[in-house]
Amino acid sequence: MKTQVVIIGSGPAGLLLSEILHRHGIESLVLERQTREYVLSRIRAGVLESTTVDVLRANGLSERMDREGHPHDGMRIAWAGRDSFLVDTASTLGRRFMVYGQTAIQEDLYAAADRRGQTVLTEVQDVVLHEFDGRPGAKPYVTYTRHGQAGRVDCEFIAGCDGFHGVSRRSIPESVRKEYEKVYPFGWLGVMARVKPLPDITYVNHPQGFALASYRNSQLSRYYIQVPVDDKVEAWSDDRFWSELTARFPAEMAEMIETGPTIEKSIAPLRSFVSEPMRYGALYLCGDAAHIVPPTGAKGLNLAVSDVFYLSRALASWYGQGKDELLNNYSAMALRRVWSSVRTSWYLTTLLHRFPHFSDFDQKAQEHELDYLKNSRFAQAALAEQYAGLPFEMVS
Amino acid sequence: MKTQVVIIGSGPAGLLLSEILHRHGIESLVLERQTREYVLSRIRAGVLESTTVDVLRANGLSERMDREGHPHDGMRIAWAGRDSFLVDTASTLGRRFMVYGQTAIQEDLYAAADRRGQTVLTEVQDVVLHEFDGRPGAKPYVTYTRHGQAGRVDCEFIAGCDGFHGVSRRSIPESVRKEYEKVYPFGWLGVMARVKPLPDITYVNHPQGFALASYRNSQLSRYYIQVPVDDKVEAWSDDRFWSELTARFPAEMAEMIETGPTIEKSIAPLRSFVSEPMRYGALYLCGDAAHIVPPTGAKGLNLAVSDVFYLSRALASWYGQGKDELLNNYSAMALRRVWSSVRTSWYLTTLLHRFPHFSDFDQKAQEHELDYLKNSRFAQAALAEQYAGLPFEMVS
Repeated sequence: MKTQVVIIGSGPAGLLLSEILHRHGIESLVLERQTREYVLSRIRAGVLESTTVDVLRANGLSERMDREGHPHDGMRIAWAGRDSFLVDTASTLGRRFMVYGQTAIQEDLYAAADRRGQTVLTEVQDVVLHEFDGRPGAKPYVTYTRHGQAGRVDCEFIAGCDGFHGVSRRSIPESVRKEYEKVYPFGWLGVMARVKPLPDITYVNHPQGFALASYRNSQLSRYYIQVPVDDKVEAWSDDRFWSELTARFPAEMAEMIETGPTIEKSIAPLRSFVSEPMRYGALYLCGDAAHIVPPTGAKGLNLAVSDVFYLSRALASWYGQGKDELLNNYSAMALRRVWSSVRTSWYLTTLLHRFPHFSDFDQKAQEHELDYLKNSRFAQAALAEQYAGLPFEMVS
Repeated sequence: MKTQVVIIGSGPAGLLLSEILHRHGIESLVLERQTREYVLSRIRAGVLESTTVDVLRANGLSERMDREGHPHDGMRIAWAGRDSFLVDTASTLGRRFMVYGQTAIQEDLYAAADRRGQTVLTEVQDVVLHEFDGRPGAKPYVTYTRHGQAGRVDCEFIAGCDGFHGVSRRSIPESVRKEYEKVYPFGWLGVMARVKPLPDITYVNHPQGFALASYRNSQLSRYYIQVPVDDKVEAWSDDRFWSELTARFPAEMAEMIETGPTIEKSIAPLRSFVSEPMRYGALYLCGDAAHIVPPTGAKGLNLAVSDVFYLSRALASWYGQGKDELLNNYSAMALRRVWSSVRTSWYLTTLLHRFPHFSDFDQKAQEHELDYLKNSRFAQAALAEQYAGLPFEMVS
């Protein structure tokens, strides 16, 4: 087989890239390790920056989101013994968020791919990238096995959208890659429940640990609490979870939390990770393949979309006008926004969690940082613009 | 002897408190361990927040400062390979700074004390505080020896303005005191030289370490560089110092740095320290006796002045109207501003120095924090208001 761009991974990054390339008349082929059912069943993020909403709208992917999604104006921060406050992106920046689950985006992307007859090969194993190092005359191709049969796709570019554990990043020689990592000394226990959510997405700093109220729609709540990273999910009955969650919220909010049977429950570690560069020869990384952020601030999916925005624009400029400037700048431009979100996620994580190894000084400094943030309109505006996500850069 | 308020320490905090109390008709007596000559020879800070300037003006202490001091509009931040930028407190907040050396303030305060016949006992040893724990019927007094003679002063209040190494803080029982400390893994090598300073106070982050250009007047420059805390000052010849300093500044600024023989050179460790509470019975701590900040951001002297502002107001309210509310709130009110400056000093220190134990992730995050700060007017405004110092609280 032959195509212009092989896309490895059919998550939101891979399918969105394929969609935008199609709109620019660029042909792609998507390789996916899992089944479509598996991909569609993953429960992930659900808070979209306004730039993400803009990209989805500009590419005809917003009909259901605009019907079913929930716009909101900012996020609320609370902590033990104090009044909460709203970091208001709408009034500060004129930008609103959209609560719309990643699962729904994935469904919309698959539906759009089906409508235009996009080739998505699922259950693809043993993917190997070849001749992608960019030396003159190299002709990139990808080999794989599928249902026991060997396969090969020749191409001009490879987009690595296959997540943190995928093959793409690890195909870049170790001598070229530089990895940056921070592992946090706790995890998040997350549940989904069919109960009415709190009106605002609310982050809580409490002596017993961080808590977060989020949601997917008006009858589907998503709650998280900070737990030791080696805790077992079996140790957390529904009763124990709700009891711990409500203990961490201020009393007047805890009273508003509806409880009920959970329909999903899992513990995830928190990590910041960036691999540089994001481009090596004909290979371009997007999303979790190149970087991971802790979920505080909901940046992961939004960063994948901004990578895809930069890469699709660069490929369109190459195929449309024969210009390679944006391709050459892809890594630097994408990384600048990546590090901005990495830093914001790190800041929010550090501000809102209890760290087992914090000294008394560190703990006091954290509480006074919250105190300052609550009382300073400048600090709130700075956090609002980081939470809302920096605008895309139009030039490097 | 007998007085209303015994003030331990004749540094800026002690003499300023004595001055303001006098203006409210409250009698004080100042005890000083050193000679006056020693106190006047200490070289310390020189950047005054607008609130500090306001306090000095309101108490008739500004004549020479307004004649010889240098107002400025903000501070400049530079780092290796990037353009510098000005964190502009004047245009953001309408507040300017004053560059005016602590040595000059000390001279002005002693001159004012002499004019009104203030008793300042110097060379006082073996100071002990008695009956100050606030239990009913307790009558505070202070004993000491001076030139071999035992002395005693009876009083109603004791103000501990005797610095980090003084007796006042350590007189509070350990079971009552809670101390918060952070020690930084480097020191500052500072020099004074009779050369024309750079136009702006400029902070530099460079791979070889932090550097700072400050000044005392138009012909007296103060420069600092980050060095290992166990470096010996003898290892730093003038030539070596100027060479290292100019290597850390961006080239166009380094060219403007005038070099010459240094007239003072010393290495100081960097520490954040807070002792709570700041009041115990009849004893009230002000300035370095209760808290130390790293010099980054020049908060130390300004915090001493804000402590004195809160304490003098509380004593005036007690002696004038018989109200003890401000006395009872002194520790909480003073500490809120203390922690705000402690946090700002910590933030600037962390942003601008190279930390030996930083991971690659930490270092990247620091550089992207600077990048964000340079490009965000909200973040610059937030830093400006912290650098300028929060306004005094009018009520608790």
